[in-house]
Amino acid sequence: MQLTKAMLNQRADQVYDVLVVGGGAAGLSAGIYLQRYLLSTLIVDKGKARSFWMQELHNYLGLPPDTPGREVLKQGKAHYLDLDGDYLNAYVEEVIDEGETFAVRVRLGRQNPTYRTFRSRYLIAASGIIDHLPQLANMQNVFDYAGHNLHVCLICDGYEMRDQRAGVFGSSPGSLEVAFPLGWFTPHITLFTNGDFEVDQERRDRFSDAGYRLIEQPIKQFLGENHVMSGVELADGTIVELDTGLISMGSKYHADYLKGIELEYNGGNLVTDPMNRTSHPRIFAVGDLKVGMNQVAIAAADGAQAATQIWRDIRRAEGTRRPAAIAA
Amino acid sequence: MQLTKAMLNQRADQVYDVLVVGGGAAGLSAGIYLQRYLLSTLIVDKGKARSFWMQELHNYLGLPPDTPGREVLKQGKAHYLDLDGDYLNAYVEEVIDEGETFAVRVRLGRQNPTYRTFRSRYLIAASGIIDHLPQLANMQNVFDYAGHNLHVCLICDGYEMRDQRAGVFGSSPGSLEVAFPLGWFTPHITLFTNGDFEVDQERRDRFSDAGYRLIEQPIKQFLGENHVMSGVELADGTIVELDTGLISMGSKYHADYLKGIELEYNGGNLVTDPMNRTSHPRIFAVGDLKVGMNQVAIAAADGAQAATQIWRDIRRAEGTRRPAAIAA
Repeated sequence: MQLTKAMLNQRADQVYDVLVVGGGAAGLSAGIYLQRYLLSTLIVDKGKARSFWMQELHNYLGLPPDTPGREVLKQGKAHYLDLDGDYLNAYVEEVIDEGETFAVRVRLGRQNPTYRTFRSRYLIAASGIIDHLPQLANMQNVFDYAGHNLHVCLICDGYEMRDQRAGVFGSSPGSLEVAFPLGWFTPHITLFTNGDFEVDQERRDRFSDAGYRLIEQPIKQFLGENHVMSGVELADGTIVELDTGLISMGSKYHADYLKGIELEYNGGNLVTDPMNRTSHPRIFAVGDLKVGMNQVAIAAADGAQAATQIWRDIRRAEGTRRPAAIAA
Repeated sequence: MQLTKAMLNQRADQVYDVLVVGGGAAGLSAGIYLQRYLLSTLIVDKGKARSFWMQELHNYLGLPPDTPGREVLKQGKAHYLDLDGDYLNAYVEEVIDEGETFAVRVRLGRQNPTYRTFRSRYLIAASGIIDHLPQLANMQNVFDYAGHNLHVCLICDGYEMRDQRAGVFGSSPGSLEVAFPLGWFTPHITLFTNGDFEVDQERRDRFSDAGYRLIEQPIKQFLGENHVMSGVELADGTIVELDTGLISMGSKYHADYLKGIELEYNGGNLVTDPMNRTSHPRIFAVGDLKVGMNQVAIAAADGAQAATQIWRDIRRAEGTRRPAAIAA
């Protein structure tokens, strides 16, 4: 059930089979499988999964291609709650490995926060990515268009950009390299630095050879209406017309709460085995946090695999019969 | 588009980027991603994917838990066709590796069949499993209940069977071992051999120790109404009341068409890398055919991964810009 503050004392002594950090596609899919394996589960979610921002999910099997990402999450959460899973809106601050269990310290509320500790035998890290638009956030209107025709995922939305005049908004020289795979879909590409960084001559030459225009002055604002971006106005008043855009932003893997536990990483991603177990035997990582593609379909599968492996572990440890009294 | 016989001559000289064998969850997901990568795709489907038989899909993120499997396939096929993918109802007989391309020989129609050969650069084997109920097919009524409360997948439907009187219908002594993980969900288990095979003493003892009843005489028929199985009538007229059942049937991986190509297998499953590439660089395997769990969510993710890797391969080979004229 959706836990309220009033209920938390009832959960104080419970040891969940699994605590899932993150209620996005990966965490919810894991929760659905776990509850169906009769394992007690708590999902702790800070709100605003990355897929929440997807205005239209175009490539998920079984749903019409204009389904908003938040609809998938809403359906998944209802599904999970129907299976009697516990769900708490809170922020996971720290995980301490106690040997047989994890102690998971969470913060509730933003102003006058309170703190609680929950315990579980297994942990699934499904906390994904926090996107940040450090420079673009200073531009007016960017949030009017992000997720509409101002995209954030080439794999997802390259198709939507085909043969269109596309702006690439980068946060570093390297982030502009996405122009090359975008070039598969459209040759009409303009790169914007927003005046935030320098582009070296070697990159400049490659962009030029590919026919991509590079604009290095600050952007004053995005133009458009009804969530349809139609271009940008530069600092000097020049207007650049565009049909679509791709924000190649900075991302931060959200796994600070694991910093006290030694785990194998590849860059910011957790390394996992084919069932999504990390280098720690009782910690699994699913979705964007682990090595691999960042896609809703893959997150959903990751959750299913992690849940199934945890079920196998617990079943083998306990013998064949789950005791009738399932906590929660 | 859905190809008709009249259109086949138009496709005779085409080399598809990818031919997908099988239009189940894995094949359709691959097709959706491939078309969105502007790759020309042909799905060849023999009909009746395993998920077609699922009366209710209880664990797929984003869909209500009573969605029939065939609805997912219907939605996925419409999605794929909207993206201009080609789809053909036919049976793939043989794949020949021509070096740069595959020649894929298909049979159209059952009576007075005709044969055609299609060509593609890549192949995705998404042809899954053919279930067979050799002994049970002789029992009356089995098809009235299969997929309703007579289940075929413990991972999917163990939850539905919790605390119920469950029959396990096996096709071999080993197939009855599924009783042990089923025991996680319910202690009320009766095993049926249908008189088709002997059970050795060691297994007999283990079943007995777990409290499972073993019935070795032939089953005359399944009982019930409105797709709700309520028990079985044995050959001697005895009635065994049941609330649910699990068919632990034989399965055959459907990959005969690949027999002319050397590939690495693990049992009947194709071995793949994390992006689902087989030991052949231009053949991918997705869904039930590959090593791993047989789940719709995983099949959908497999398709996304295979499609993405093929896109990367082709993009790197061709340079950044897909030629404007996409065949098909």
